[in-house]
Amino acid sequence: MSSVLAAASESDWRSPAPEQTLLMDLPQGTVIIELAAGFAPNVTDNIRTMIEARFFDAASVNRSQDNYVAQWSVAPQDGIPVALPKGVHDSVAAEFFRPLKGLDVDWLDSSDVYAEQVGFVGGFPVASNSAAGTAWLAHCYGMVGVGRDVATDSGNGAELYAVTGHSPRHLDRNVALIGRVLHGMELLTTLPRGSGQMGFYEPSEQPVPINSIRFATDTSGIKVLRTGTDTFRQLVEARRYRADEWFVDKVEKVSLCNIPVPVKVNN
Amino acid sequence: MSSVLAAASESDWRSPAPEQTLLMDLPQGTVIIELAAGFAPNVTDNIRTMIEARFFDAASVNRSQDNYVAQWSVAPQDGIPVALPKGVHDSVAAEFFRPLKGLDVDWLDSSDVYAEQVGFVGGFPVASNSAAGTAWLAHCYGMVGVGRDVATDSGNGAELYAVTGHSPRHLDRNVALIGRVLHGMELLTTLPRGSGQMGFYEPSEQPVPINSIRFATDTSGIKVLRTGTDTFRQLVEARRYRADEWFVDKVEKVSLCNIPVPVKVNN
Repeated sequence: MSSVLAAASESDWRSPAPEQTLLMDLPQGTVIIELAAGFAPNVTDNIRTMIEARFFDAASVNRSQDNYVAQWSVAPQDGIPVALPKGVHDSVAAEFFRPLKGLDVDWLDSSDVYAEQVGFVGGFPVASNSAAGTAWLAHCYGMVGVGRDVATDSGNGAELYAVTGHSPRHLDRNVALIGRVLHGMELLTTLPRGSGQMGFYEPSEQPVPINSIRFATDTSGIKVLRTGTDTFRQLVEARRYRADEWFVDKVEKVSLCNIPVPVKVNN
Repeated sequence: MSSVLAAASESDWRSPAPEQTLLMDLPQGTVIIELAAGFAPNVTDNIRTMIEARFFDAASVNRSQDNYVAQWSVAPQDGIPVALPKGVHDSVAAEFFRPLKGLDVDWLDSSDVYAEQVGFVGGFPVASNSAAGTAWLAHCYGMVGVGRDVATDSGNGAELYAVTGHSPRHLDRNVALIGRVLHGMELLTTLPRGSGQMGFYEPSEQPVPINSIRFATDTSGIKVLRTGTDTFRQLVEARRYRADEWFVDKVEKVSLCNIPVPVKVNN
């Protein structure tokens, strides 16, 4: 796989658009998140408004559940939820899947336990049901989603999570996914686990402060491999068929969440 | 799922046999590992001899690769590999799979991308190929395996790893798995990632010392749900069909590595 990447041409890589790129600044470093276009536009717009209003400057990671998610939001003040910035909708109708039609999918040529068809759209893992004509982003490691209560419109983007463990694909089509962590996942996965229910930090435990979440201004140092390229297809095939001498069983199978889309960051 | 577990009877739980239970003492706490019987007996015996000789008291975690594995071994002294204790074999013939015959498998009634049949044997996730008549432990989160070089007999148990990320099922049938972490996974998953190739710690980074690995003497405070019980089958069905009101899509699918076998530990 390293030889496939070494042979990649400059044009196989893209820099994410600054307006689709979030920099989440933690005391430990910066987590870079790319927003996906076309899957959950309304809640993404809501998040965009929150970021522009610097809403997340008061946020903290308040949940870290082993083999599941790290989650962040703005803690209530004196038990009262913090007011959302002007222009932010308190509720957003569910955007858990979308029409398959209109998507340019790089199919993986294999189904999996959770979906009949899987592949990539613009660098993001997707799954689909061709009979229903629907498609959705898939809960692979590093995907970022919108926490919600029981009401399906209750996820407004003020509470976000990243998948830090084995892919919880049962969440697919039950929550809006909005993007994925391109860089800095280890800053989230190494956070202390919360000892409360579902990994929430107890009052005695220190939530991890988030200094800020901002849009990137210059993304030229961030390069994501284009999933529509021959290089990416070769990479998938190299993951499917393990040519390396070490592998006595060449596998000949690959599942969606075992294909991280390569990212290079020049710090 | 919590209601299924709450209704479990005392006899649905078992304490692992002390001679199958390892206590890996780290400065941060204790990782409890249960050894699987019947899959890799020779390398497991080798490890047993090493533990009895207190070989791992000089060990450290020297590799932590994000979304993959944490790995430990005894570092060479002045560039010279540390001698193995008396009675430990330097090489062990591959035990990457075994005959399916003779195994009492609690089947999951679903295949997955990597195997035609999957299920559980004595609390461990297994996969099988009925045509070939073979079965093997599956690389789910928390499984513990035997690091090896290119030679298939080079894994002698002196270098072990635990899966800390999305299941690397492509390693199935390429490495011997010997058990799984019952408790304390977060002590391994929260370790700083190594900045060297494949997550190895660089000389400038501090390997995480292992104080000792010992067999447990009293396991009465450790309870693992028996996978052959109705309670476990109900738990699997509750994971397959998500009755909870929160789930608008009830899923109706479940994959092997999304079924952690429940463990209770009284500290």
